[in-house]
Amino acid sequence: MSLTDSVLSGERLALARLLSQIENDKPSGQEALGELFAHTGRAHYIGVTGAPGTGKSSLVNRLAHFYRQPPPGESPFKVAIVAVDPSSPFTGGAILGDRVRMRDLSGDPGVFIRSMAARGSLGGLAPTTASMAQVFDAAGFEIILIETVGAGQAEVDIARLAHTTIVVEAPGLGDEIQAIKAGILEIADVLVVNKADRPGVENTERALRTMLELAHPAPRVFRHHGTFQSIPQGEPTADEDLWVPPILRTVATEGDGVPELAAAIARHRDHLEKSGEWQDRDRARLVAELDMLLQGKLVERWRQGVSDLQYQQIIDSLVARQISPHQAVNELLDGGQES
Amino acid sequence: MSLTDSVLSGERLALARLLSQIENDKPSGQEALGELFAHTGRAHYIGVTGAPGTGKSSLVNRLAHFYRQPPPGESPFKVAIVAVDPSSPFTGGAILGDRVRMRDLSGDPGVFIRSMAARGSLGGLAPTTASMAQVFDAAGFEIILIETVGAGQAEVDIARLAHTTIVVEAPGLGDEIQAIKAGILEIADVLVVNKADRPGVENTERALRTMLELAHPAPRVFRHHGTFQSIPQGEPTADEDLWVPPILRTVATEGDGVPELAAAIARHRDHLEKSGEWQDRDRARLVAELDMLLQGKLVERWRQGVSDLQYQQIIDSLVARQISPHQAVNELLDGGQES
Repeated sequence: MSLTDSVLSGERLALARLLSQIENDKPSGQEALGELFAHTGRAHYIGVTGAPGTGKSSLVNRLAHFYRQPPPGESPFKVAIVAVDPSSPFTGGAILGDRVRMRDLSGDPGVFIRSMAARGSLGGLAPTTASMAQVFDAAGFEIILIETVGAGQAEVDIARLAHTTIVVEAPGLGDEIQAIKAGILEIADVLVVNKADRPGVENTERALRTMLELAHPAPRVFRHHGTFQSIPQGEPTADEDLWVPPILRTVATEGDGVPELAAAIARHRDHLEKSGEWQDRDRARLVAELDMLLQGKLVERWRQGVSDLQYQQIIDSLVARQISPHQAVNELLDGGQES
Repeated sequence: MSLTDSVLSGERLALARLLSQIENDKPSGQEALGELFAHTGRAHYIGVTGAPGTGKSSLVNRLAHFYRQPPPGESPFKVAIVAVDPSSPFTGGAILGDRVRMRDLSGDPGVFIRSMAARGSLGGLAPTTASMAQVFDAAGFEIILIETVGAGQAEVDIARLAHTTIVVEAPGLGDEIQAIKAGILEIADVLVVNKADRPGVENTERALRTMLELAHPAPRVFRHHGTFQSIPQGEPTADEDLWVPPILRTVATEGDGVPELAAAIARHRDHLEKSGEWQDRDRARLVAELDMLLQGKLVERWRQGVSDLQYQQIIDSLVARQISPHQAVNELLDGGQES
């Protein structure tokens, strides 16, 4: 049986091997993904992002538990976790309690946890994460939780891979933490104030509401309508084409608010499907992935075509301040013609 | 008088105009920088990086004050601050106290503060920051402080622009914050535990020392010697080719430890010059900048050469799962040939 057949039939060992090939950028991995790609497009990609200290790893953990053991009458989902957060217990920057809780999950055949070695490979993190999510998708995982630290462009790129992006905040992390979120908030579909049993939860919630209003006064409202509609933040709306990011409170360590979060995620999926955004986001995600891959490949090819001697000579002129970096680029690409 | 002449003669308005042209990626800005580039290579680029909440903006502030008002007998330096941290008071995510302190600096003709709009432009942040630093360098600023948030690849790239990189930590930010630093520590030349009047300072210092040992057991030791030398972290060494990142304590709000930090920075510069690393880092920095610019330009050119119709058709096949992203790249670059 080929590796791709084994992955499609749900063999964990084959899955682990393919994920390693992809993480190590082996051509065999991309070949296999090429074969598997036709089986993708079914899973719900859920990004979970937030600053260190917000407890998002515990939240991911609890969400996974919830999907495995849903309320009576609902079927469990197969869940994959891709952790690209260097502070996550899934990737190693752990506090003991999280590790212990994680152990339950790792004994469950319906859960697959994969952490990414962020160190030294941040440049290619987003494309690799996309490929990994696709492998899980093809292997029949219905929920793919992608956990990132939520600062920096790589993390924003990763969050954009998701159908639903959850931004996690916590009380008492200070004004500075709030400020870093301005960019991240624009990509939030659901906002969570975790550690909601701590003092200051009202302040955090109010700050998020204010920032949300600043970030997009009429969030996601223009997409399918031509008219402006001002909707209070966090309020449900009857119009299925509108999505106003709700703000939810959770205490992940106790599991409080997790069913409500899962319900909000399900509502968002429903909204995406009914409004046509599911397809829009799928396309946008694939285009973004394509562009990232193209960029890497273009540079790789160009490097192969240029002589080391010419490259070194230009660097020598640059270091001697005879030419500027932009002039050096023009030299290398056109032999000195202005571009 | 041309814009570049005005910048060289120290006119602040001309400087501000040129910086804006560069930030907005105007061709005129790069043209001017090409003319100015021969005047660069003199300034000391100092990167200051750390998580939100470590107080690194206050530290940058105090350092700038110190360089402007050095102890009797030493000459003041002209100081530029480039703030690319969205949580910095220099860029707007401010607490009031910092804004007030900043006001002193901004009245000083020997200081120029430039903040970068991080939002939406993170992709090109590192090359733009490099260009801005070069403009300040050419304009005769001797110390260029580059403040970044210290998470994500863009920030690591920016830190690499510096001759001397200072990593700022603070007590009580939790285990998770520590973990995020593993990658950043590798680029640290000086480690600072700010807010050192807070409880837990010994723990933070010990954690840093341990992480430093893990990150590089014999830091910066192999570079010019073939033999291994195990030096206790933070200890001064007689050998000028060795640099062991010292760990310093500061209370930026009070100015405590700032003269000692400035002294460590001066020692590091001395070490760089005597060991030949000043030249090595200058070259490495310019090569990194060249590579970033090349990457952007290659993508831009490729886009111009490909037809919209072909690009859209390939995206349609991708969205229909008929081809994988890697196959799409091959199609676009080679018309379907395996690369």
